[in-house]
Amino acid sequence: MPKIKVGVLGATGAVGQRFAQLLVDHPYFDLTVLAASERSEGKSYRAATNWILTEPMPAHLAGLEVQPMSTELDCALLFSALPTQSAGEWESRFAAAGYAVFSNAGAHRMDDDVALLIPEVNPDHLNLLAHQQANRGWDRGFIVTNPNCTAIPLTMALTPLHRQFTVEAVIATSMQAVSGAGYPGVPSLDAIDNVIPFVAESEEIKVNIETNKMLGRSNGRQVEPAGIAISAHCNRVPVTDGHVVTASVRFKDKPSLGDILQAWQTWQPLPQELGLPLAPNPALVIREEPNRPQPRLDRDAGRGMATSVGRLRPCEVLDVRFVVLAHNTIRGAAGGSVLNAELMHAQGLLDNFKEEVDTHVPA
Amino acid sequence: MPKIKVGVLGATGAVGQRFAQLLVDHPYFDLTVLAASERSEGKSYRAATNWILTEPMPAHLAGLEVQPMSTELDCALLFSALPTQSAGEWESRFAAAGYAVFSNAGAHRMDDDVALLIPEVNPDHLNLLAHQQANRGWDRGFIVTNPNCTAIPLTMALTPLHRQFTVEAVIATSMQAVSGAGYPGVPSLDAIDNVIPFVAESEEIKVNIETNKMLGRSNGRQVEPAGIAISAHCNRVPVTDGHVVTASVRFKDKPSLGDILQAWQTWQPLPQELGLPLAPNPALVIREEPNRPQPRLDRDAGRGMATSVGRLRPCEVLDVRFVVLAHNTIRGAAGGSVLNAELMHAQGLLDNFKEEVDTHVPA
Amino acid sequence: MPKIKVGVLGATGAVGQRFAQLLVDHPYFDLTVLAASERSEGKSYRAATNWILTEPMPAHLAGLEVQPMSTELDCALLFSALPTQSAGEWESRFAAAGYAVFSNAGAHRMDDDVALLIPEVNPDHLNLLAHQQANRGWDRGFIVTNPNCTAIPLTMALTPLHRQFTVEAVIATSMQAVSGAGYPGVPSLDAIDNVIPFVAESEEIKVNIETNKMLGRSNGRQVEPAGIAISAHCNRVPVTDGHVVTASVRFKDKPSLGDILQAWQTWQPLPQELGLPLAPNPALVIREEPNRPQPRLDRDAGRGMATSVGRLRPCEVLDVRFVVLAHNTIRGAAGGSVLNAELMHAQGLLDNFKEEVDTHVPA
Amino acid sequence: MPKIKVGVLGATGAVGQRFAQLLVDHPYFDLTVLAASERSEGKSYRAATNWILTEPMPAHLAGLEVQPMSTELDCALLFSALPTQSAGEWESRFAAAGYAVFSNAGAHRMDDDVALLIPEVNPDHLNLLAHQQANRGWDRGFIVTNPNCTAIPLTMALTPLHRQFTVEAVIATSMQAVSGAGYPGVPSLDAIDNVIPFVAESEEIKVNIETNKMLGRSNGRQVEPAGIAISAHCNRVPVTDGHVVTASVRFKDKPSLGDILQAWQTWQPLPQELGLPLAPNPALVIREEPNRPQPRLDRDAGRGMATSVGRLRPCEVLDVRFVVLAHNTIRGAAGGSVLNAELMHAQGLLDNFKEEVDTHVPA
Repeated sequence: MPKIKVGVLGATGAVGQRFAQLLVDHPYFDLTVLAASERSEGKSYRAATNWILTEPMPAHLAGLEVQPMSTELDCALLFSALPTQSAGEWESRFAAAGYAVFSNAGAHRMDDDVALLIPEVNPDHLNLLAHQQANRGWDRGFIVTNPNCTAIPLTMALTPLHRQFTVEAVIATSMQAVSGAGYPGVPSLDAIDNVIPFVAESEEIKVNIETNKMLGRSNGRQVEPAGIAISAHCNRVPVTDGHVVTASVRFKDKPSLGDILQAWQTWQPLPQELGLPLAPNPALVIREEPNRPQPRLDRDAGRGMATSVGRLRPCEVLDVRFVVLAHNTIRGAAGGSVLNAELMHAQGLLDNFKEEVDTHVPA
Repeated sequence: MPKIKVGVLGATGAVGQRFAQLLVDHPYFDLTVLAASERSEGKSYRAATNWILTEPMPAHLAGLEVQPMSTELDCALLFSALPTQSAGEWESRFAAAGYAVFSNAGAHRMDDDVALLIPEVNPDHLNLLAHQQANRGWDRGFIVTNPNCTAIPLTMALTPLHRQFTVEAVIATSMQAVSGAGYPGVPSLDAIDNVIPFVAESEEIKVNIETNKMLGRSNGRQVEPAGIAISAHCNRVPVTDGHVVTASVRFKDKPSLGDILQAWQTWQPLPQELGLPLAPNPALVIREEPNRPQPRLDRDAGRGMATSVGRLRPCEVLDVRFVVLAHNTIRGAAGGSVLNAELMHAQGLLDNFKEEVDTHVPA
Repeated sequence: MPKIKVGVLGATGAVGQRFAQLLVDHPYFDLTVLAASERSEGKSYRAATNWILTEPMPAHLAGLEVQPMSTELDCALLFSALPTQSAGEWESRFAAAGYAVFSNAGAHRMDDDVALLIPEVNPDHLNLLAHQQANRGWDRGFIVTNPNCTAIPLTMALTPLHRQFTVEAVIATSMQAVSGAGYPGVPSLDAIDNVIPFVAESEEIKVNIETNKMLGRSNGRQVEPAGIAISAHCNRVPVTDGHVVTASVRFKDKPSLGDILQAWQTWQPLPQELGLPLAPNPALVIREEPNRPQPRLDRDAGRGMATSVGRLRPCEVLDVRFVVLAHNTIRGAAGGSVLNAELMHAQGLLDNFKEEVDTHVPA
Repeated sequence: MPKIKVGVLGATGAVGQRFAQLLVDHPYFDLTVLAASERSEGKSYRAATNWILTEPMPAHLAGLEVQPMSTELDCALLFSALPTQSAGEWESRFAAAGYAVFSNAGAHRMDDDVALLIPEVNPDHLNLLAHQQANRGWDRGFIVTNPNCTAIPLTMALTPLHRQFTVEAVIATSMQAVSGAGYPGVPSLDAIDNVIPFVAESEEIKVNIETNKMLGRSNGRQVEPAGIAISAHCNRVPVTDGHVVTASVRFKDKPSLGDILQAWQTWQPLPQELGLPLAPNPALVIREEPNRPQPRLDRDAGRGMATSVGRLRPCEVLDVRFVVLAHNTIRGAAGGSVLNAELMHAQGLLDNFKEEVDTHVPA
């Protein structure tokens, strides 16, 4: 089966590196283009990149020349690890030029006609695509986004519960890894022996509005938010990878702890049913130990794609509380975006990008 | 003015070391006795102690011989840093033998007739003392306790708010320093690059019931708890000293953010009015930066006795949220206990222990 | 091909867990016995073990009952992760009872008739085995040991250089990970924001004498040490896994930097030639970046079995200096021991343990 | 006694903040000028500065307006925390304009006519000043520098030994704190759970040549280096403050360990004799525990100005080895520079800057 030629935008940064690492030997996609800002132009990927992952740089990519940003890139699908400020315009230009754009940036997440997608959570939101293309006058290209790295584990844990018991309110406190800030990101003097009770200007708002969009209903033109009151306290802790979130939750229907456990255990999301390459199985790893999940021990579950939950117990103020964790640069960023593309591929929504293996003439 | 002779029980441990360090050149107290378990008996304090504080061991204590636990200790007042399991019985024996016992252990905190005291919060709860002595048949000795190290900063921030606006509910998530577990305490393999979403079996319950006791009303025989719904998520983070707590709070009277800020700013607690030696002034340090308080930068405020609050903002679920921090082994343990003794000294409640400077004949 | 039934002694500890993890689906060995002290007796491996590895506990081992220490264990080969103090006697008893014992403990390393083995370094030292058995009256059983976790990376880097240029003197400073101390091991209060310039009483001596034994000559009865002057400064740093060693080296023949680089690059050790299952290829990863090797980025090279060297440059006092790194609990402990067993298996030296798959009747 | 008006160049950076903190209530100096690059111009010190020290920003400085770099600054003496690249030219301009310049930058350290000064080590090198002024045509101004933060503790430990026994060779491995790289400095992803065996391009050379200059002989026109072979391996470790150095040393005269201990114990350097305000007493703290000095426990000795040595023992390759530690931003940077100025003040070498308290008309 021919693979689709794909590229990574912002390939030299922290999330760009994750895309590169996760796309090695991918059954659907053939990574052929690494694009970055002018600073890297003409350099090999090895020379242009301060590689920060513990997995070594894929050998076949090291010698590839980094491409400048342009709509002449020789591929059909793009994974965007661009910084939010430049992502807005560039991603639109690429989509207009006929590329399928899977973005990890924040720029288009809350656009009415853009799906903010977790394949386990809201695959039906892809029904926004036709409207997006009509709305923007794009014939083949489109933009699909994935959410904030803290919203992801929280939403994963809430989804089966919201479907059955209707979540009304959530108070969440995150303890976020420094890799979430990219590289160089958080100065070590701020991280060592410290907690910073602040992540970024809009971080706490994102957890609120993105979670509500994902758990909301799409009518094919826009999404009606779920209407859950969500209060997020976001903190940075001296951890390399893995965001931990404590959550207190109130439900409309008052499930017992057993009901919640069962909802988690019996959840059968679509990517796992489809057997998508990066889909972890189970999607939710339920830890029964009193002191789990922990970033060091649980972030790599399901090759970094699983979400771990634990410490389910009653809440004295709302109804229940628990702890949830996911790897922020795999499930919470690049891996989530690749899974989005895998879902669309499995559903046949990328079929008209496949010819691109042989000849690429976007726009 | 003659000083009262004091001793430290459990002097070789982490909290015991803090007591020793804080009592150097104290204007009211003369530290003359360092007591510990049999293992240390007959050794000098230097030889018996694995000193873990960044401040050096006080020179005049280094050569002191560590005393075995016995009610023949040559002092009138005891600060107890005993482990909870042995504190229960030993503290009662010392009080029965005529010693004033200021305990940092959990054993007697919730006894009906024992004051669980933060001098800024509930100095009136000392009206339990006469009843305690009558109740237990103790003529001069007594036990006063200080609360859990996470309950302390939370209660400090809540007190002026509860007095004015009546707190109804609190959801708090702590990020607690490893020194809270004593020494050797948390293994480094569990701490480095990690978060443990668990502190101890009863930690979250303590935050609930101890805070409610301190904010409750004492009728001189017992305390009616404040009746606040408190849900605590307790976590261990790789920080040496300083507990951070995020809090979402619901009030009966709905104060504005300005009302809350003013309540904090105008709070005039008793220890500061009395000018007690260890009382920080202000008791609450209000940080206006978006990313404070932080353990590394704020734990030593007021020589480790101040409580720092910041990030006051509305809560989408309850009414407001904020972040609060205090040094867990100073304000949250030994320093808090010494301040309890200072309060009683300033109020004349320790006068009949003063003669002890010359001749000690407990009970 | 029938596999040899193997067991792990001290299976619940840190190194024992590594053995268990590395032996999953091993082509030569079938892990069937997990033995530990009485404390774990009768419990399942899951219940008896505080699992501290980032890789999850192998599912098929979790339910296995932990066996008490006895020479009735149902296997033919034992990997020993026993603490040194109990290893001495137990390992001898097992060898006397007919078991092949591959030990990670320090107890027998310097015994004259025991091979202290790194397969890449001194496979010929296995010629001590016949003498060991004759000497001790053991008919089939034997003991083979692997060296100290800091001696391993140092010796790996020195071996091809010593063979060609004769090493005369080494000054080495180690920065050792906390996992080297086992679990609970180093208290987090000692590790966070700190360096401890001390590892253990005999650590620095071990680096000296063990390296000299491995680089020495075996005459089949004992090993003549290499006679290299080795001075080791051993330090503990806040790193979970991966020991880093800086080394200054003086040679008899004065090689150029190019000579040294070539010696490393062209080194063809036996385990790589034999294609042993755990043998990394290359054995030495030569890093050319100015700031490598680093524990976080390089410890997992070759699945934790490769040794990384870098920063080769002249030394103003001796001849050259460089930095070397290896994963201390994989290459430096359990993995090294399994590789020892793989070497003997490949050389046919374990053939008379193979029948054990069906029926085990040691001694 | 009138104080000398002083300013800090580069006042908003990490070392600039240390200068500001150390100069509060200084008996000789009155800090009145905080100068920085254009970016900070016109802002208050509080607004211009991301304060990173654990000690709070001095209250009386917070409102001061940050001055632009110009030779019209209203003070007579300048402490320079400028980055090396801009320090070269600016420091010369200030000295030419009549300011006394005490620099922490590397730019002029190795200039023939500039004293590279540690008051305990080479106070006689101040005899270069007259030649410097004549040489450069400066009538009153001058430049005095302090050395690299790793060279400082090493040289402190070596000085009394070199004076008595003549040091011939040193192999040193540093484990340097992240604060040495300034702010933002080392990214936390590089620091957490990691060691970087590299500090900066010329770091290892600096330790060599600066130590040799300080231990050399000044003839009033230049310094003849000490001629010690020094090999430094420089590493970055996840520690906030405090550089640790392991050292192996060869001597011409072969002192016993007792001789060395006595040389350290009986060392009476000039700043301690003069009782300079920042001079720690003793200059060297000799730790006898097997596991000291440690950054967390020893960096603040002597208010961060003392150097701690320990682990004295024989070296198998050179003669002896030991461990030495100092606070890198206090003794190793700002504090060292202030001590240089204190020495010159006490020796009357700053007398003609004193009038500046009232009227300043440089150049």
